Amino acid sequence: MSQFTQWWERQDLHYKAGHLYFGQVQMEGLAFSAETPLYVYNIGRVQANLQRLTNALASTELPYQVFYALKANRSLPLVTTIRATGLCGIDVCSPNELRRARQLGFPETKISYTGTSVSEKDLDCIVKHPHIQFNCDSISTIRRLGKRCPGREIGIRINPQMGVGDHPKRQYAGKKATKFGIYRDRFLEALAVAKQHNLSVTRLHFHVGGGYLEEQIDALDTVFEQSHWFLDQCTNVKTINLGGGLGTPHTEQAAPFDLERWAELISKHFKARQLNIQVEPGEYITSDAGILIMQVNTIEQKQGVTFVGVDGGMNIHPWYASYDLPLQIVPLRYDPSLPMQKITVAGQINEGIDLFAEDILLPKLQEGDYLVLLASGAYTTSMASNHCMRGEYSEYLVWDEPRD
Amino acid sequence: MSQFTQWWERQDLHYKAGHLYFGQVQMEGLAFSAETPLYVYNIGRVQANLQRLTNALASTELPYQVFYALKANRSLPLVTTIRATGLCGIDVCSPNELRRARQLGFPETKISYTGTSVSEKDLDCIVKHPHIQFNCDSISTIRRLGKRCPGREIGIRINPQMGVGDHPKRQYAGKKATKFGIYRDRFLEALAVAKQHNLSVTRLHFHVGGGYLEEQIDALDTVFEQSHWFLDQCTNVKTINLGGGLGTPHTEQAAPFDLERWAELISKHFKARQLNIQVEPGEYITSDAGILIMQVNTIEQKQGVTFVGVDGGMNIHPWYASYDLPLQIVPLRYDPSLPMQKITVAGQINEGIDLFAEDILLPKLQEGDYLVLLASGAYTTSMASNHCMRGEYSEYLVWDEPRD
Repeated sequence: MSQFTQWWERQDLHYKAGHLYFGQVQMEGLAFSAETPLYVYNIGRVQANLQRLTNALASTELPYQVFYALKANRSLPLVTTIRATGLCGIDVCSPNELRRARQLGFPETKISYTGTSVSEKDLDCIVKHPHIQFNCDSISTIRRLGKRCPGREIGIRINPQMGVGDHPKRQYAGKKATKFGIYRDRFLEALAVAKQHNLSVTRLHFHVGGGYLEEQIDALDTVFEQSHWFLDQCTNVKTINLGGGLGTPHTEQAAPFDLERWAELISKHFKARQLNIQVEPGEYITSDAGILIMQVNTIEQKQGVTFVGVDGGMNIHPWYASYDLPLQIVPLRYDPSLPMQKITVAGQINEGIDLFAEDILLPKLQEGDYLVLLASGAYTTSMASNHCMRGEYSEYLVWDEPRD
Repeated sequence: MSQFTQWWERQDLHYKAGHLYFGQVQMEGLAFSAETPLYVYNIGRVQANLQRLTNALASTELPYQVFYALKANRSLPLVTTIRATGLCGIDVCSPNELRRARQLGFPETKISYTGTSVSEKDLDCIVKHPHIQFNCDSISTIRRLGKRCPGREIGIRINPQMGVGDHPKRQYAGKKATKFGIYRDRFLEALAVAKQHNLSVTRLHFHVGGGYLEEQIDALDTVFEQSHWFLDQCTNVKTINLGGGLGTPHTEQAAPFDLERWAELISKHFKARQLNIQVEPGEYITSDAGILIMQVNTIEQKQGVTFVGVDGGMNIHPWYASYDLPLQIVPLRYDPSLPMQKITVAGQINEGIDLFAEDILLPKLQEGDYLVLLASGAYTTSMASNHCMRGEYSEYLVWDEPRD
């Protein structure tokens, strides 16, 4: 890959003669004919991400199942192609997500459902799907489900009291009590409530954060270690669901998640127990398989800051504005002979926080140029709102083959 | 009003024999028959808020216009009733909002449009509406609009370089450069570009933040003071648009915005100039005219914290999770004989930040009870997303008259 000069370039995403290609399709042509803001997903990359992950799990020689986390991106064509690979089931967290999964033809047995603050109305839907793999994250849920369907198999979401993630906002466990899962101090009570209703606990589940990269591997080792105490309490458990959280690098400094070491950790902790391994990746599957293209409409210096205004907003891509997560922004056309300019990229929403990046260096832009946000295929459109009635965007698939 | 024991109780929102009434309607009956999560808007309160504001402006004896900020809440029935009052025009910030305003029968002359990062596609729509009051927030917009419709009247959004608001995230001007408006250092250039295209600048506009309460009044005095330099540069200007930002108290500690002092400030600064005064309130009109009712499905202690799970999430009410803004949460049924309990209110979204309040004291709750988020009529549904496919909510109007 020595022909690539940018850290993020790869076989299916790179410049050729200054033009950005994604899945072998020249993006400028697409941006010109399509309406911006424009999301593009490379199905070839989605499949490669899934394949890489399943290969790593296969290397553990333990039985495994992958469930794609629907909440990361529920674009119907995209999820349909994920279903078509046959490589994974699907992870849902609400009745509507469950129904969507069924609509796309996922069998109940290949659906993992982990909710929080589960309502009676949610249970109305859950009890109609007896074969899904339902994980209870509270004793209250165990008790209420148990009353309705005694004898059912369930999983229990545990809270290993340790958070992992690239940002405090994405840590779902840790020193501060979180709403998720059952902590060690009440786990025996949870098992007793399950037993009281004749529920059979066959699976433990935990999910401790998001955006795992190289840095987070050691912490994961400790989290896995924490799970042993729980496993020791319920020897019927044959399956451990490690949740999602596997991340994608969004900056040059971020080292990618090391799947090989991860697989080794899984083997180290769970091989002796001969457990069935489950994982629920979302970001890892779709994030770097998606880009967002926006057109620059305004370039203007204000108080010494060069604001580059684009035709999208935080409402369709909340990562930077709402989560303080860094984004890699690149020009659609790259001309290295242009002088570099420090810019702040601003959206169209009438809120001060509506920015995509601050003080980044890019080759000098002009109004009418296009900017591209890389690794934008997860937790963007799935969280989009119509704030300021600016909720419109289009979505295109490319298939990693020549087009047009 | 001595019969009220809670700080937020008022004639149209209070307990009677432990039942919450809103606009004279008992909310428990409504919550029982409707689907939760459930927004309720009291049209009587909307009208009273508008009337109070126009009365304050009338007291200045200056000509004035109020434009309701559509982005605060675009519920069609709600905005239709606002249109019906005849007390105000409407403030929009995007082509879709402009079209929505026209659909509801607002004449162009009663539409104020202030956008940011204005695209060519936006201008395609704006030029088709020659009589709207369009405010340019960048020299780029002035130049591009001027090329298309020389001779048009415009307003210029200025940035007085001072932010006002109840939270740093809601300050749109200040020491840090923001994307909004034209600063003093480039204002003469902006006027020159307008002149070059024969655009007639008849209005200045500024909007410096949100959630103004008593504390912010002094800062507003300084902001108004800053505007004089700009007004001195363009003596054709006959109108000053003070933007929105007027807030509603969300906690007992917050003192309400003092309309009388505000009117005095407006007189003090703009009377001698005999300016036409415009304001664009959103939160002030609809926030305390709306409540959100959710049902408790889970009550559970986790690591010493009592989590109360409800059937809504940050995706339909982002104030606390995304903006760190405090919310007043009250029980739908109030029984003062119950012991008080410290709770954290959690939603149904699978994110750690999905909370509505932490460590608040409420009379002890049970699963199945309802909780009410007060002052939830602005910047909630208008920013709602379908994250986790949990985007459903219902909206009901009450009319401040007995019902059912």
